[in-house]
Amino acid sequence: MTALEKQGLAAKNAERVLAVAGQERKDTALLTIADALMARREEWLSANAADLAAARAGGMKESMLDRLALDEGRIAAIAEGVRQVAALPDPVGQVVKTATRPNGLKLEQRRVPLGVIGIIYEARPNVTVDAAALCLKAGNACILRGGKEAFRSNRAAVDILRDALESVGLPRDCVALVEDTSRESANEMMNLTRYLDVLIPRGGAGLIRSVVQNARVPVIRTGEGVCHIYVHAKADLPMAARILYNAKCSRPSVCNAAECVLVDEEVAAEFLPLAWEQLKEKNVALHADAAARAILPWADPAGEEDWDREYGDYQLAVKVVTGSEEAVDFIARHGTGHSEAIVTGDADVARWFMDRVDAAAVYVNASTRFTDGFEFGLGAEIGISTQKLHARGPMGLEELTGTKYLIYGAGQVRE
Amino acid sequence: MTALEKQGLAAKNAERVLAVAGQERKDTALLTIADALMARREEWLSANAADLAAARAGGMKESMLDRLALDEGRIAAIAEGVRQVAALPDPVGQVVKTATRPNGLKLEQRRVPLGVIGIIYEARPNVTVDAAALCLKAGNACILRGGKEAFRSNRAAVDILRDALESVGLPRDCVALVEDTSRESANEMMNLTRYLDVLIPRGGAGLIRSVVQNARVPVIRTGEGVCHIYVHAKADLPMAARILYNAKCSRPSVCNAAECVLVDEEVAAEFLPLAWEQLKEKNVALHADAAARAILPWADPAGEEDWDREYGDYQLAVKVVTGSEEAVDFIARHGTGHSEAIVTGDADVARWFMDRVDAAAVYVNASTRFTDGFEFGLGAEIGISTQKLHARGPMGLEELTGTKYLIYGAGQVRE
Repeated sequence: MTALEKQGLAAKNAERVLAVAGQERKDTALLTIADALMARREEWLSANAADLAAARAGGMKESMLDRLALDEGRIAAIAEGVRQVAALPDPVGQVVKTATRPNGLKLEQRRVPLGVIGIIYEARPNVTVDAAALCLKAGNACILRGGKEAFRSNRAAVDILRDALESVGLPRDCVALVEDTSRESANEMMNLTRYLDVLIPRGGAGLIRSVVQNARVPVIRTGEGVCHIYVHAKADLPMAARILYNAKCSRPSVCNAAECVLVDEEVAAEFLPLAWEQLKEKNVALHADAAARAILPWADPAGEEDWDREYGDYQLAVKVVTGSEEAVDFIARHGTGHSEAIVTGDADVARWFMDRVDAAAVYVNASTRFTDGFEFGLGAEIGISTQKLHARGPMGLEELTGTKYLIYGAGQVRE
Repeated sequence: MTALEKQGLAAKNAERVLAVAGQERKDTALLTIADALMARREEWLSANAADLAAARAGGMKESMLDRLALDEGRIAAIAEGVRQVAALPDPVGQVVKTATRPNGLKLEQRRVPLGVIGIIYEARPNVTVDAAALCLKAGNACILRGGKEAFRSNRAAVDILRDALESVGLPRDCVALVEDTSRESANEMMNLTRYLDVLIPRGGAGLIRSVVQNARVPVIRTGEGVCHIYVHAKADLPMAARILYNAKCSRPSVCNAAECVLVDEEVAAEFLPLAWEQLKEKNVALHADAAARAILPWADPAGEEDWDREYGDYQLAVKVVTGSEEAVDFIARHGTGHSEAIVTGDADVARWFMDRVDAAAVYVNASTRFTDGFEFGLGAEIGISTQKLHARGPMGLEELTGTKYLIYGAGQVRE
């Protein structure tokens, strides 16, 4: 058995205990974890300081260093996040539906944990705790494989988590950290079908594509967002400009940020200058088609590749369309199925658009930035699913469960 | 573009029409299909006769020839199955949940089709129509790849289906048949992530394992069943014998048939001879551990491999256990997560067992043979999922849909 297989088997066994632990025990564990993260923060900070020093020496750039760094405030926020997960209702054991069949069999479909969840992520130590807390609350064991730059931080966090679990009588192996951060260990994990029920990659597009490409364990695809704002001819144009500015500029690095605006030709000459008044505050670089450049001559010409780019930055693709048919077709070709918005005053057009656009979240007259577990009222999320199977959109606790049928008989046999 | 990519693109476009076609149009299409299958049955039968002649000449064995064969009665039953699908409620458009957020955003989570579904199956021409009908009703286009021995039959059926779709104004490409039945086309299909949203293999364990192993398209794993009947010390033993006989012998080739009986040592000497009284009627071959062979000396000794075998035949593995702990551990190691049953008069033990056994369906005092869409009241099924993501157990129409969020705003932007 490899080291990872041993962790897999241990997690499987731990999960059988956790699956029937009950809400009270799990919440006690989470609150104990939150307290322990605070009580042992010096230990966590010093491990993080070692990671940061090594990363700095290795030439990691400033924005990445910022993602890797912990401080007192961040640790307090992470611990508070764990307490919030403890306060959420437990989906495990919920009855989804019941039926009594003509032969007297009683059926009950009940929520159960998914099992053992693998999480592959990059150098963000907060993910270690956030993901583990959500998995635990939904009764799942987890095997975490973070980026090698954060290994010392993750090791310290997982030690704290495992000690806290043990202190409340739950198996330490409900949470495990992959020790080997090589590419080989990631590949082994992607093929650990015997022990992993699900694999969730969290990180950039490259990581997610690699996991989807190589995994045999069922994957939940998250966080790829080429989102559009479509400004219809009957839009309230100042509202459209505000929504576009918010969707592009409020946090351009996240997956629910807009990457492309589509505007009806009928209102392009009026809308685009209005939008630019706001976008220019952030020096947003525009990549525009010819019709849009005729209105905004300072925009760069867009190439075909711009329609599929997730800039993650103050950059925006701009295209003039003939109407909602073209907008919907364009989104079908270039969207990633994350979040799409129409701005229009025409309820019929809105309905038509919403019926036809195939995405996790389709908005009328609101910013795509709302696609988020907290904003949807689901609480913390493990990611935003852009696939169609199992869960779509923000994945909260319920989406970290599956179901099983319980059937109560009195000796029934099938004819 | 390859032939399959062309079919994929055409299916994607057809699906966009089908997704918003509405229940009435889809039901009309299904009823037209049922009528057309009857009206053109000579055409279908003669294609099937050609398949049968070739298969016979190729030395196909009798049980396989029987699966391949159509006749008037079978066609009538298939057409009737399509009418039953038409009569089921349409899951598409159903509102799963709604919420109004403090900022005034109105959320609606709505059922939508999954998209384009690939089905890879063996030489059973009835699957062609059954699967297409279920996909159509749930608003999904489908690309069908049946076994090469049934190609002429499948071609004839798909022609009838496509003509019927066209006659009611729906795109022919809602249903497509893969022309190339080579292994290469199967591999290409498993990697057609651009056009296929889901892949469902239907057939034997070898087919399913190959798809799970090779596919990059998300797969729904169905129909692997190593099911157990656990006879607890407090079982009504005659009831347990009836349940075991039914679970093993009523249709041994199907996935919800039992493959192994576990019996508490306390009642083994009484139960096993009682069970044998019935099992011997079908000359069931027993593969038993030493403790069971001490009671049934004519049983073969079981090897380790017997605990993992899906016999699909009149064969049964037999093991004596010390109690429910051992039974649950054994099922965790050797079950496939399909259907598991306990026979007991003790409700506490039943609850304990049902909480701990991780399977699509867990029974108390009933035969595992009930795991089936019709028996569960879901109507026709596309398969029985043994995975945890998305759907578990019989997959009816609802399980052939996903969801999306529709969000209605009035200009909201995120802080």
